[in-house]
Amino acid sequence: MRVLGVDPGLTRCGVGVVEGVAGRPLTMVGVGVVRTPADAELGHRLVAIERGIEAWLDEHRPEFVAVERVFSQHNVRTVMGTAQASAVAMLCAARRGIPVALHTPSEVKAAVTGSGRADKAQVGAMVTRLLRLAAPPKPADAADALALAICHIWRAPAQNRLQQAVAQHTARARTPSKGRTA
Amino acid sequence: MRVLGVDPGLTRCGVGVVEGVAGRPLTMVGVGVVRTPADAELGHRLVAIERGIEAWLDEHRPEFVAVERVFSQHNVRTVMGTAQASAVAMLCAARRGIPVALHTPSEVKAAVTGSGRADKAQVGAMVTRLLRLAAPPKPADAADALALAICHIWRAPAQNRLQQAVAQHTARARTPSKGRTA
Repeated sequence: MRVLGVDPGLTRCGVGVVEGVAGRPLTMVGVGVVRTPADAELGHRLVAIERGIEAWLDEHRPEFVAVERVFSQHNVRTVMGTAQASAVAMLCAARRGIPVALHTPSEVKAAVTGSGRADKAQVGAMVTRLLRLAAPPKPADAADALALAICHIWRAPAQNRLQQAVAQHTARARTPSKGRTA
Repeated sequence: MRVLGVDPGLTRCGVGVVEGVAGRPLTMVGVGVVRTPADAELGHRLVAIERGIEAWLDEHRPEFVAVERVFSQHNVRTVMGTAQASAVAMLCAARRGIPVALHTPSEVKAAVTGSGRADKAQVGAMVTRLLRLAAPPKPADAADALALAICHIWRAPAQNRLQQAVAQHTARARTPSKGRTA
């Protein structure tokens, strides 16, 4: 599966595409940062993020988009911008019918380092190792986006089993009404 | 001027269009609510809000969009949804080149009731009076959207004078370089 990870932010929105399946070596397809000027109007910044995300979706055609789930424990101002940038990323994916998954920062850290409380350097080091890169991706937002994509690929088997179970249950629940209309 | 006010929210996004100028009776052009189901996926809810806002922009062609500035004093979960819905509204407007203004809840309350700490009922009553409506618009989100539009129209003269001053200053600052290139 090919996953676009998005570490949302107004000033720096990290984006990274990873391809692979759980249990096999993963491949980095692309990594980068969508930047918007801090002195631009908020509406224009959101338009710039939309254009950036659209360009990544056009170029890499991911099957899934994994976005960091925003919490408000952090700085108030930053959190609002993060929530707004994440909304644009989710909107772009959902508009194309691409499934969007949200993962918390601690889920991502735990997935790639084994600890939900790992620091940026540790996440960067593991992303570098797991994707067999020559050096840690810079800035940290880019590395975090790749970590999100890796987290999604590794968590997907469990989530897929759950979705299949729900789909089967729904299909079974619908069978009697099909019988009635036949 | 014609202003679309948006009271952002994922479950109920209030929208109201008001036409007029400061110091003259105002006219309500339209009012409504864009709703999305609470059990839908977040990405799909944002797409539904985008469609709703686009429909209002298409139908009423406002010259300005006024959106409530989101604060995080409230409930954490609600604030994230509000920030995300507001991002979609700002994005839709900015994409069309429509200027977006943000007003805080207390600015809006102070504009229409004279008190920044007025309650919902007071805001509803004043919106009804100022727009000469038969009854307060329901739900409160719809009334709040109209209040935002009224607030913008009334605050606009001061903001316009400021913008004109900035524009004149910028034009003056550019004059010498024009001289050099001539």
